[in-house]
Amino acid sequence: MEKTKKRNVIVGQSGGPTAAINSSLAGVYRTAKDRGYNKVYGMLHGIQGFMEGRYIDLSEHIKTGLDEELLKRTPSAYLGTCRYKLPDIYEDKALYEELFKTLDELEIDCFIYIGGNDSMDTIKKLSDYAIVTGSDIRFVGCPKTIDNDLALTDHTPGYGSAAKYIGTSVKEIIRDGWSLETLHGQILIVEIMGRDAGWLTGASVLSRGEDCDGPDAIYLPEIDFDINEFVNKCRGLLENKASVVIAVSEGIHLADGTYVSELGNVIEYVDAFGHKQLTGTARYLCEILSEQIGCKTRAIELSTLQRAASHCASRIDILEAFEVGGAAMKAADEGDSGKMVVIERTSDDPYQASTSVKDVHKIANDEKLVPREWINEEGTYVTNEFITYVKPLIQGDVAPIMVDGIPRHLYVPGYQELL
Amino acid sequence: MEKTKKRNVIVGQSGGPTAAINSSLAGVYRTAKDRGYNKVYGMLHGIQGFMEGRYIDLSEHIKTGLDEELLKRTPSAYLGTCRYKLPDIYEDKALYEELFKTLDELEIDCFIYIGGNDSMDTIKKLSDYAIVTGSDIRFVGCPKTIDNDLALTDHTPGYGSAAKYIGTSVKEIIRDGWSLETLHGQILIVEIMGRDAGWLTGASVLSRGEDCDGPDAIYLPEIDFDINEFVNKCRGLLENKASVVIAVSEGIHLADGTYVSELGNVIEYVDAFGHKQLTGTARYLCEILSEQIGCKTRAIELSTLQRAASHCASRIDILEAFEVGGAAMKAADEGDSGKMVVIERTSDDPYQASTSVKDVHKIANDEKLVPREWINEEGTYVTNEFITYVKPLIQGDVAPIMVDGIPRHLYVPGYQELL
Repeated sequence: MEKTKKRNVIVGQSGGPTAAINSSLAGVYRTAKDRGYNKVYGMLHGIQGFMEGRYIDLSEHIKTGLDEELLKRTPSAYLGTCRYKLPDIYEDKALYEELFKTLDELEIDCFIYIGGNDSMDTIKKLSDYAIVTGSDIRFVGCPKTIDNDLALTDHTPGYGSAAKYIGTSVKEIIRDGWSLETLHGQILIVEIMGRDAGWLTGASVLSRGEDCDGPDAIYLPEIDFDINEFVNKCRGLLENKASVVIAVSEGIHLADGTYVSELGNVIEYVDAFGHKQLTGTARYLCEILSEQIGCKTRAIELSTLQRAASHCASRIDILEAFEVGGAAMKAADEGDSGKMVVIERTSDDPYQASTSVKDVHKIANDEKLVPREWINEEGTYVTNEFITYVKPLIQGDVAPIMVDGIPRHLYVPGYQELL
Repeated sequence: MEKTKKRNVIVGQSGGPTAAINSSLAGVYRTAKDRGYNKVYGMLHGIQGFMEGRYIDLSEHIKTGLDEELLKRTPSAYLGTCRYKLPDIYEDKALYEELFKTLDELEIDCFIYIGGNDSMDTIKKLSDYAIVTGSDIRFVGCPKTIDNDLALTDHTPGYGSAAKYIGTSVKEIIRDGWSLETLHGQILIVEIMGRDAGWLTGASVLSRGEDCDGPDAIYLPEIDFDINEFVNKCRGLLENKASVVIAVSEGIHLADGTYVSELGNVIEYVDAFGHKQLTGTARYLCEILSEQIGCKTRAIELSTLQRAASHCASRIDILEAFEVGGAAMKAADEGDSGKMVVIERTSDDPYQASTSVKDVHKIANDEKLVPREWINEEGTYVTNEFITYVKPLIQGDVAPIMVDGIPRHLYVPGYQELL
């Protein structure tokens, strides 16, 4: 089979950063080089930055094997991300024409986009446009999100490391809480990311073991939240324990859809994209508890650390992210377009999984939630099925490369100037 | 020299827990055993629990060398702590009589207390009482506090691990913040523990390196805080950067002594019940910034994780904590009483330090702050002297003992029943 001369690749990152997204970038880069591509360009801040002419030649930044290893251990998005959704083709054809013109000028054969739902929407639109216009550029998506809410894939790279960090941190919080409290009961509420899907909050169960009770209750956004039932539950828990720890999703909401975080603040926090910030759930619940039970409370938000803590990354996750990046590059190289790489699990124990590709039209904008049967009937804990699912994803460590006592990351030289 | 037959030791932990306090406990235990003591008792929840008859025989819980290693890696206080201050002897002599009676019944020779300022006050009072009454029980203090505010010692065990966690986490937060922001400026404010002393907040500077700018400003409680100057500083920083990260101590206060966190009350921040909510320092400053500059903001509290994150402990810190525990036991065994072990640094690079003992009367209730000359003139950053001081304390790692992907801690079997 004859092949045309290989030209260039461009890769971008999009959506919320993770501890593993750069390992996928390293996987794309390594596979592109191994398969004989000339240049590997990196879009700065995703498709949005690219449309403004901002991109780099990755070879100028990844020069050695050590750089590749550092990249795999660097949290957040090395290239920067965006939260930009392409318009539909019929809405702004000129934009697509311009974009493809630039891709042709750069002699791009393969376009790899690492991201979540919105990013797969980008892959779908671009590959559709390529079909319509007869372009032979291939567009392949590489899954990434700590939220683990992408359809059709067993799980998403980034989730395992976040889950490991959450399990580890919640265990330390539980231990800390226990040591201080003697006479008076206290309730610690740990707020964990997840607007609609409870995968991250459920991972707090990983703190449980012979040496730790784990959280005393876990509330996911899949189940409508009832404040009275919550207060009663807490009251009961305090009867048997001096220090109670409860994990809640930032996205828990009442039956009418009102987020618990909205109940707390008169002032609304709105981010640059017009999304309401959901933080404040734990703080509001603490207010309620100290009002109604009178116990000591503390709200703990894991905040951005849960997606950025590469110092506590899962080895399985980092390796899979690398593999998935490579698989995306391989698929594009072999002619696939409009596809996303997925992970297929064949066994829990021993854990075995492989990658394949699926049509991105079946994935985009679809959200995978925690199945109802993986949550107990009361809606206050996850089941053993959940634990069996998540446990393989947090196995093993990736020792950070330490310089002077602090993990080293791969630097983008002069990134300020690039902005 | 003839020695009386060795009998028993009792050890307790007090005050805020740290990632290293259990390593000191392991040091006390190991040295007591090596020096031929019979039983090593552990007070549950410090002197307060002990007075209620709650203590355990540590040998029943530390059975193997692996248990000792687990204990060194277990965060928070294994025995539980208290925040109890003994009354003066003349105020409640009966209490002291009762306490010494119990100690005699348990055939205690040495009493070791691991803690901060309040704990050294306990050692002082008990050793004074022993002198007055002719008791030959020896009372020795073992320093511990993440706050690093104990006088006469170069630093306190617990500080190094907290500093390492703060440096690592702030670096990840900075990276995360950078990746997301393109068009709009944002300011992230990281709130770090420390009511009066800025040692922990200053440690955020450890995130700085070739691969990271570090925080853009650092505010310690040693310097009076001026809100207008702060807002102007932020405005200036935003002109050059899309994502600004600022570290603040929870204890920063205005020139009149009002804590910034108290100002949160002034702004009408109303919960569902119509109650004003006392916001945190970072949250309050975020409010001010979004009001006066209009930028996106996010408040991140490192919360209890900064004192409990043994998964990110400093090797130097854990080893020194063990050594200091051993030195306390050795001092008591050799007849010292009313003393605290201190660390004396002889060289920064290569780092060299040794232990000695000092009179606890010179230590108790005295607070060590960051020297003014280790903070820049503007009061918005720490100097190189600060960095030179802290850097040796975060070197090296103590790999957690991982079981099923999560760090393992030493369990107190049936601790619920003991309470």
